[in-house]
Amino acid sequence: MTRHYNFCAGPAALPTAVLERAREEMLDYHGRGLSVMEMSHRSPEFVAIAEQAEADLRELLAIPENYKVLFLQGGASLQFSMVPMNLLGQGGTANFLYTGIWGKKALAEAKQLGFAVHMAGSSEASGHTEVPTQAELALSSDAAYLHYTANETIGGLEFDYIPDVSVPLVCDYSSSILAEPLDVSRFGVIYAGAQKNIGPAGLTLVLVRDDLLDQRCQRIPSLFDYQAVAEAGSMVNTPPTYAWYLAGLVFQWLKHDIGGLEAMATINARKAAKLYAAIDSSGLYSNPIALRNRSRMNVPFVLADERLDKPFLAEAEEAGLLNLKGHRSVGGMRASLYNAVPEAAVDTLIDFMADFEQRRG
Amino acid sequence: MTRHYNFCAGPAALPTAVLERAREEMLDYHGRGLSVMEMSHRSPEFVAIAEQAEADLRELLAIPENYKVLFLQGGASLQFSMVPMNLLGQGGTANFLYTGIWGKKALAEAKQLGFAVHMAGSSEASGHTEVPTQAELALSSDAAYLHYTANETIGGLEFDYIPDVSVPLVCDYSSSILAEPLDVSRFGVIYAGAQKNIGPAGLTLVLVRDDLLDQRCQRIPSLFDYQAVAEAGSMVNTPPTYAWYLAGLVFQWLKHDIGGLEAMATINARKAAKLYAAIDSSGLYSNPIALRNRSRMNVPFVLADERLDKPFLAEAEEAGLLNLKGHRSVGGMRASLYNAVPEAAVDTLIDFMADFEQRRG
Repeated sequence: MTRHYNFCAGPAALPTAVLERAREEMLDYHGRGLSVMEMSHRSPEFVAIAEQAEADLRELLAIPENYKVLFLQGGASLQFSMVPMNLLGQGGTANFLYTGIWGKKALAEAKQLGFAVHMAGSSEASGHTEVPTQAELALSSDAAYLHYTANETIGGLEFDYIPDVSVPLVCDYSSSILAEPLDVSRFGVIYAGAQKNIGPAGLTLVLVRDDLLDQRCQRIPSLFDYQAVAEAGSMVNTPPTYAWYLAGLVFQWLKHDIGGLEAMATINARKAAKLYAAIDSSGLYSNPIALRNRSRMNVPFVLADERLDKPFLAEAEEAGLLNLKGHRSVGGMRASLYNAVPEAAVDTLIDFMADFEQRRG
Repeated sequence: MTRHYNFCAGPAALPTAVLERAREEMLDYHGRGLSVMEMSHRSPEFVAIAEQAEADLRELLAIPENYKVLFLQGGASLQFSMVPMNLLGQGGTANFLYTGIWGKKALAEAKQLGFAVHMAGSSEASGHTEVPTQAELALSSDAAYLHYTANETIGGLEFDYIPDVSVPLVCDYSSSILAEPLDVSRFGVIYAGAQKNIGPAGLTLVLVRDDLLDQRCQRIPSLFDYQAVAEAGSMVNTPPTYAWYLAGLVFQWLKHDIGGLEAMATINARKAAKLYAAIDSSGLYSNPIALRNRSRMNVPFVLADERLDKPFLAEAEEAGLLNLKGHRSVGGMRASLYNAVPEAAVDTLIDFMADFEQRRG
């Protein structure tokens, strides 16, 4: 068995220790004679797994008691529908910051569902290389909430501040949640697809402040209703039990193997700083993002001569450095440095890039 | 490691051979240096897994070419919303057959979303012990489709025929799909949560006849749109990749280890016949369902003296027979005999029941 270094943007690398534990428990969880996958979601064994996962997440993010934690399905993209349906029942306009592809999709979804939308800020003029500043935000007078994307996975553009606004803040944290400590109390709703820093695809986390639970539209699918889901402990119907269990293992890994989110943030900062330094000091590689908004999780870069893209990717893969190809919509390269990507992976990538530049640059 | 016999109604037993294969491939899929969970859903490796799973399912069920196969999230319960939103865009009434808890929920969901509903048949008068006959069905004149639940998991009530109607037939096949061959061409839409006969919770299969893809309501969440999902190969956003992979392993097991659905049906018929015979010939156990409608997948039974319920369950668990407790809404016992529950499990259960009756009955 070999484990290569995996820079995939998502579904992304998981900690090897987590996969080893899952492998060990695959056919027989703690001597119970069955797999976690085969347990009723209402069994004492699974309920204990689910509760432990929530408790660990609450501890890691220091989630205040007045926030519900929901374990859902459908990915962040389903939240593009669920958020307006849950928050616009009393009217008002959904405000959006547009800093890349995901933020744009969130706005488009609210609009096509018939909700009023307003663009309260955009990085479009800069070619999405710099996020609007606090001073540049312009909310509509009837704003019900402000939605933004903390980190644009494809563009590699990350907010360097939490917007300070008078309406509930809703944030898509899919690609940077758990990368560092977070002041949850600044937000009305935080959501994140699991497949970057949480666990496998097929699980979505939603944190929602409890005073926002009664703002929903009248006719929404039962499974969309944050309040009903919260009251049922995320078990209105059968939840994605195995993904929930794996997320729990990741939370345990963050707590015990890493030592919490402060420690994780230090490692992540070091990983990103190293790679950006290598890019900036090279003659072959470049990244266009304003320094203050460079993503620590997703590092896109281009080669000065795009004819070198193919050999770069082929040789990288040969060297056990997987999934460095940029998103099909933008091309170039992208190295995703999520929590589970070890520092050694970044070191190896940097060495490879230097060697490639020397030989081919 | 011990594997007990698991009669859980869902999430349910998976074939041991499938879990062994998943365990083996957990950290390194086919020498690629990463887990299936860590692969981009757009990588050639995962696309091959996904396509193979669909091809195997199509072969197993002999799905006609004019049907799309969708791999979704949200469980069968989300289909309670998605079906009317996809099929009632041109008006008309959703017709339902009510034969238990799940069928009732499907009707309630369509109603609360504001759609016109009509009860076209019910087993309520019989206490849900007998499904209405073909002659008893009474559709509304403006019926857009007829929805029913092939097998009621909680009641243990199964249709012994496929309704013959002039409108598209929509069927929740969650707890009996793949238990035997099925004439898919009789249906407009078939859907099934994975966590009984397909794979782990968090995956939902939908088969939809392609002429029904343009009937959707205008304002539906993008991820609800069957047509858009079909066009994107179930990858509008990141699908539940690991659950999809596991479903693929189950399909392979059905094809190669079992020998297809005819063979599976023979085994399932034998399992159910044995258990019902044991119940009927005992003085302690009983099952109230009309013979023609007894579920082959979920066998509920009660003990003549309910004070024996607790010791029955405790002793069964002691004997390695897990999850025989009936649904909290109905009490009593329930043995679910899905595909992955081996005949030996049923034999062991029958022996245990006879022994228990002799000692305590």
